[in-house]
Amino acid sequence: MSMSGARGGRERLVVIGGDAAGMSAASQARRLRGPGELEIVAFERGHFSSYSACGIPYWVGGDVAERDRLIARTPEEHRARDIDLRMRTEVTEIDVARGRVRARDVDSGDESWTSYDKLVIATGARPIRPDMPGADAPGVHGVQTLDDGQALLDSLAHTRGRRAVVVGAGYIGVEMAEALINRGFEVTVVNRGKEPMSTLDPDMGRLVHRALEGLGITMVNNAEVTKVHTGEDGRVRAVATEDAEFPADLVVLGIGVRPQTALAEAAGLPLGTHRGLLTDLAMRVRGHENIWAGGDCVEVLNLVSGQEQYVPLGTHANKHGQVIGTNAGGGYATFPGVVGTAVSKVCDLEIARTGLREKDAHRVGLRYETVTIESTTRAGYYPGASPMTVKMLAERRTGRLLGVQIVGREGAAKRVDIAAVALTAQMTVEQMTALDLGYAPPFSPVWDPVLVAARKATAKVRPR
Amino acid sequence: MSMSGARGGRERLVVIGGDAAGMSAASQARRLRGPGELEIVAFERGHFSSYSACGIPYWVGGDVAERDRLIARTPEEHRARDIDLRMRTEVTEIDVARGRVRARDVDSGDESWTSYDKLVIATGARPIRPDMPGADAPGVHGVQTLDDGQALLDSLAHTRGRRAVVVGAGYIGVEMAEALINRGFEVTVVNRGKEPMSTLDPDMGRLVHRALEGLGITMVNNAEVTKVHTGEDGRVRAVATEDAEFPADLVVLGIGVRPQTALAEAAGLPLGTHRGLLTDLAMRVRGHENIWAGGDCVEVLNLVSGQEQYVPLGTHANKHGQVIGTNAGGGYATFPGVVGTAVSKVCDLEIARTGLREKDAHRVGLRYETVTIESTTRAGYYPGASPMTVKMLAERRTGRLLGVQIVGREGAAKRVDIAAVALTAQMTVEQMTALDLGYAPPFSPVWDPVLVAARKATAKVRPR
Repeated sequence: MSMSGARGGRERLVVIGGDAAGMSAASQARRLRGPGELEIVAFERGHFSSYSACGIPYWVGGDVAERDRLIARTPEEHRARDIDLRMRTEVTEIDVARGRVRARDVDSGDESWTSYDKLVIATGARPIRPDMPGADAPGVHGVQTLDDGQALLDSLAHTRGRRAVVVGAGYIGVEMAEALINRGFEVTVVNRGKEPMSTLDPDMGRLVHRALEGLGITMVNNAEVTKVHTGEDGRVRAVATEDAEFPADLVVLGIGVRPQTALAEAAGLPLGTHRGLLTDLAMRVRGHENIWAGGDCVEVLNLVSGQEQYVPLGTHANKHGQVIGTNAGGGYATFPGVVGTAVSKVCDLEIARTGLREKDAHRVGLRYETVTIESTTRAGYYPGASPMTVKMLAERRTGRLLGVQIVGREGAAKRVDIAAVALTAQMTVEQMTALDLGYAPPFSPVWDPVLVAARKATAKVRPR
Repeated sequence: MSMSGARGGRERLVVIGGDAAGMSAASQARRLRGPGELEIVAFERGHFSSYSACGIPYWVGGDVAERDRLIARTPEEHRARDIDLRMRTEVTEIDVARGRVRARDVDSGDESWTSYDKLVIATGARPIRPDMPGADAPGVHGVQTLDDGQALLDSLAHTRGRRAVVVGAGYIGVEMAEALINRGFEVTVVNRGKEPMSTLDPDMGRLVHRALEGLGITMVNNAEVTKVHTGEDGRVRAVATEDAEFPADLVVLGIGVRPQTALAEAAGLPLGTHRGLLTDLAMRVRGHENIWAGGDCVEVLNLVSGQEQYVPLGTHANKHGQVIGTNAGGGYATFPGVVGTAVSKVCDLEIARTGLREKDAHRVGLRYETVTIESTTRAGYYPGASPMTVKMLAERRTGRLLGVQIVGREGAAKRVDIAAVALTAQMTVEQMTALDLGYAPPFSPVWDPVLVAARKATAKVRPR
């Protein structure tokens, strides 16, 4: 007796994880197949569904007034669309051979099996917690979930002192630094790398470093946190590195996340070198016809390096969900890969990158030239024209664009999209010099800064 | 005796026109070839060289404090780089057979011949002046040159009344409407078309129409100006159409420009259907090895329609100059064509377009689908998120992107660059749905509005 047979001919789609990738997949599958054809059951172990984790720093910083603004769709809204979303229910086992998952009610502890015809794994990421004394002390916060954000906000409200230490200087680290400045804290950022924003080359990271200092943030590079000191009340008092100690009334951990794939691994599903699930172009788990995976628990192909990479970003999770839902719903869609685009801001400083950094190019065996140019976001004579720096990498000989990094003020970051599309189309920097980009004095100098970089890169890879 | 022989082995490059295209060409040629190898003579009939005509509305409106901010390089600066720039000197004849040009000193009337080995024609555009009574009355202004801008500013200072009529609702028209509002005028825009911004489809132009009205601008569509009425002092008093009369203390003409090619035509050089010079990919005038042309006097290939088009924009002029100077200086560069990108703003409304409008697609025989979507410039919950509308055209069956139009608030316009690169790369709308664009809440919803449009267009050209 087939399992679907037991459900009166309806297929059952089971989704593990009720956030961006999982619920996008569920919603898209529902759009294509009505409840008479397809039953959809989704399990989420937390309190919230479909929320913008990327928005948490802005909620903590006060730019977003309330938590619920970050929730794109509540469990009730999903249920109203015939998606059986079971909150506070954690999947504890995937039984691939028999096509079923075991789920546990987090509050009652009750467990039961649910069979599936089609399975979507969207278990997301878990934050890296440093393995050191005091890391779990009151006053030390992660910022990955809405619950984390709420705990941090509560802590902000009750903390008397005004000294905050942010551990990590990547996207979350710098966004949290801004949030804490907005909340009136003195902020120190402790960073393991040479410069903040290790997703940039260090020469571009240095520009971010200077700008952070200009905002009154104390930036400590080349420093690994070894211990969190607590006071008599057990609450955080200071953060220690090998060389120094930084008084702290509050500590925010922003040192990244790892794919949450223990469940998948236990089920024998294939993981890559970054411990993320490996999928094919249709986002199916490799070797499995009826299991898909997407979002922060998978690795993605970087189209420039030709290698799998771990890029936990909400924008990819949403695309994955869309592709999975289309395929699981009987349509056809693919996710060809990423080019490594990311944008961020700290106060009015905008930071963007796409493609490969120098060390990425080295690692994958590409020879390249680099250029760095200074320009402005608008025509130099137009009010509000602000400096921006563009670094560009191009392959030697072929002149193919390999990567772009941008640091600048308002209007700088989204220019990286020009390079993101050019990378996707495998353009050379010389082809880019002829791009017909929007020009008017309020929007750009007559040569857009990206074109200025492309011109200079062209001259370097192909003299004259 | 060869002419270059007479110059001691040095070649002579003659440039007609001292603005963007001409002087970019001269500068780039000079970069590649020193004065010992190449003599460069440039003729400019006006008072200024290398200025940003696109900046004039912002100077008139007061955003740019002084005229000289619009001048990228003065005649003296060009001369310091060994470019013999002769101001107030008009070329009156090109003698292709003998390789020489006749130039006249505008002030003295003296004429003389100058021979060339290589010639660059960069004679620019002339504004369309309506052929009607009163068009030359005091108080009626064009805004093409710095001299025009100065005359208009003088007029603003002396005009008692505060009623202005702008004739034409294209880029210049709407930019001048904003400038005059900034100067405290009541502004009426009289427009021949169905809606303002005829570079957009009328349904998108309607959004501009509404926004202009929201700014307090009176918008009169479907109206052709037939007469300018003058008062007893001879100065403009009103503008008349067939049906109505609009009191006016000041009139600004923004009804476009035509290529200035009488000189080239008289010399037997090839003109296209828009009366612009026809060039090859190296920007050489077709059929002429040693004559180049660029800027507002040439037609350019539209890569989407496959046909020549007249697109007088400073950004193209600069690129033409760069390509011409590289080739004339012994290097190699090409200008492959345009995709029809343009951006503009009126107060905080941003307007952008690239590729083909519906009527362009019709005209060149392309069948297409269109979609129009509403989204926001930032994540909906992020402060400053503003509405933006994106219209997208895709070819039937193939799904190839044909065009994008955007109307919205801050951050909307430059998103058109995504589509401009995608058009250049001949992407389908389905390929676009996978583009790895920069996402963070301050910069974009998790699905960039351009991707939302691409998704919807994909569904339309290829159901499921």
